[in-house]
Amino acid sequence: MSVREVTLVEVGLRDGLQNESCILSTADKKQLTEGLIAAGVKELEITSFVHPRWIPQLSDAAELACSLPDRSDVRYRALVPNRKGLERALETPVDEFAVFLSASETHNRKNINKGIRETYPVLEEVVQVALAQGKRVRGYVSTVFGCPYEGEVPVANTVEICEALLKMGVYEISLGDTIGVATPRQVKEKLKALTKVIPVDRLAGHFHDTSGTALANAYVSLEIGMTTLDSSFGGLGGCPYAPGAAGNVATEDLVYLLEGEGIATGIDLDALCEVGWLAEKLLGQRLPSKMLRRMAAHVQAKEESRE
Amino acid sequence: MSVREVTLVEVGLRDGLQNESCILSTADKKQLTEGLIAAGVKELEITSFVHPRWIPQLSDAAELACSLPDRSDVRYRALVPNRKGLERALETPVDEFAVFLSASETHNRKNINKGIRETYPVLEEVVQVALAQGKRVRGYVSTVFGCPYEGEVPVANTVEICEALLKMGVYEISLGDTIGVATPRQVKEKLKALTKVIPVDRLAGHFHDTSGTALANAYVSLEIGMTTLDSSFGGLGGCPYAPGAAGNVATEDLVYLLEGEGIATGIDLDALCEVGWLAEKLLGQRLPSKMLRRMAAHVQAKEESRE
Repeated sequence: MSVREVTLVEVGLRDGLQNESCILSTADKKQLTEGLIAAGVKELEITSFVHPRWIPQLSDAAELACSLPDRSDVRYRALVPNRKGLERALETPVDEFAVFLSASETHNRKNINKGIRETYPVLEEVVQVALAQGKRVRGYVSTVFGCPYEGEVPVANTVEICEALLKMGVYEISLGDTIGVATPRQVKEKLKALTKVIPVDRLAGHFHDTSGTALANAYVSLEIGMTTLDSSFGGLGGCPYAPGAAGNVATEDLVYLLEGEGIATGIDLDALCEVGWLAEKLLGQRLPSKMLRRMAAHVQAKEESRE
Repeated sequence: MSVREVTLVEVGLRDGLQNESCILSTADKKQLTEGLIAAGVKELEITSFVHPRWIPQLSDAAELACSLPDRSDVRYRALVPNRKGLERALETPVDEFAVFLSASETHNRKNINKGIRETYPVLEEVVQVALAQGKRVRGYVSTVFGCPYEGEVPVANTVEICEALLKMGVYEISLGDTIGVATPRQVKEKLKALTKVIPVDRLAGHFHDTSGTALANAYVSLEIGMTTLDSSFGGLGGCPYAPGAAGNVATEDLVYLLEGEGIATGIDLDALCEVGWLAEKLLGQRLPSKMLRRMAAHVQAKEESRE
């Protein structure tokens, strides 16, 4: 493994919570965010400035963004679907924005109500305005590894979209396994094809654990030289196309694997688990992260030995 | 990936169930076994002939072994701790036996009540008697990747034990991450050291998912050329040292990953999930396998579209 340092983008507050039916209060989200920061998380995607009707869980986007501690060492990020969302976000202390579209035409139409190429001008406007305000913009490409409507998605689609996004001025593109169907071979093949055209340091991996393969997929991405991975504390989230399925790759499990590889993340696993247990309490359910259970047993054994 | 075919040893009925507090009836176990066979599973570790007091869940070892269908294409396996267990097992139609010990002295003493080298003569007797009866014997080495009492376990311990087992006449050694702490780098390093002395086709990987890394560990084992992996349907099991933690790597998730690699397993994933759902019903709990949830959502969506 030649990679020595990895940037983890914590997406639990956005991609994780947006799939949870239990709506958390802004105060709860703030507490979770502060816990993540205390654990050493530096890159936090906190919300999405979509229309409040679309995702009720994230309807407090501006309120949450304005309530968070002002930390020069932490970057708050938010999704913005269009110019209107960006305008709302620009009135908050959010540091960085992300635009999104899908690699498959049908998913893009269902999600954004536009074809892929019709989406470009909308995103271009967002990127231009954000850059003019001195903000970085990230791009998300969904359904890179499979589409719930079209099945297999040609890598050529993703290449074309990545090139368009980079040309707009996006600094990094997160490749989404939106429905969690990717396997290591597929990840290797797609990344090899993509990195022929796009430098690997412009790409990030965003894996969902619907099939249990997320951590293995993250691992092969690292083998190929990827240094930015998205993850969700507690493994929060789910899959709108597979109710009951697991969410994003769990930050705790990923941090444990990275530590094993000798790769620095700056995250304290004990403190991170505290945040996961808090989320379980707030949501009233067990989260998928395996390390959360292992560490809970460890803590309990320690307490019992003290008694 | 140069590996083209993988043998999966289904250990859910033994290693999985022995960690479950809900005791299943022999008839239930028979039904699960028949389901696994119908799904294409050929190698089944069905029980352990330890003293019934040790593991109440497996106290019906002989009864279960005698109740199973006589199939020339299926191999029933069982653990035997000593000569006495072997004698009981030899009165049943079990095809193959497995002996076990630990790579760490303390775990071996706690588990078997003997030091590692004191255990050798006990195992040697079992192997000799079994071979004389025309039976194959597998060896399990526990705590290869970490010990709950000693922490890190030197690979030299495992090398010495593997050499002793092979000398006794054991045909294959399954390397156990008993407490599920292994990470891909550690698996690579240990396997590289081990395969300098022991041919890779004499080794199998037995990964627990306590830390969420089991599937990634299985993946790197395949990369190194390992062709036999142990797994548990539904991800059944747990970890006696971390109550509430996940069990063995889930067969469903492993089969999905292997299919993605183009590696044949002969197992039908739909039929396998049916067995996992049955186990969930019998045990009254959700099992950790991610594919079980994904496939359940898929089946439900199909049923709803029919309505």
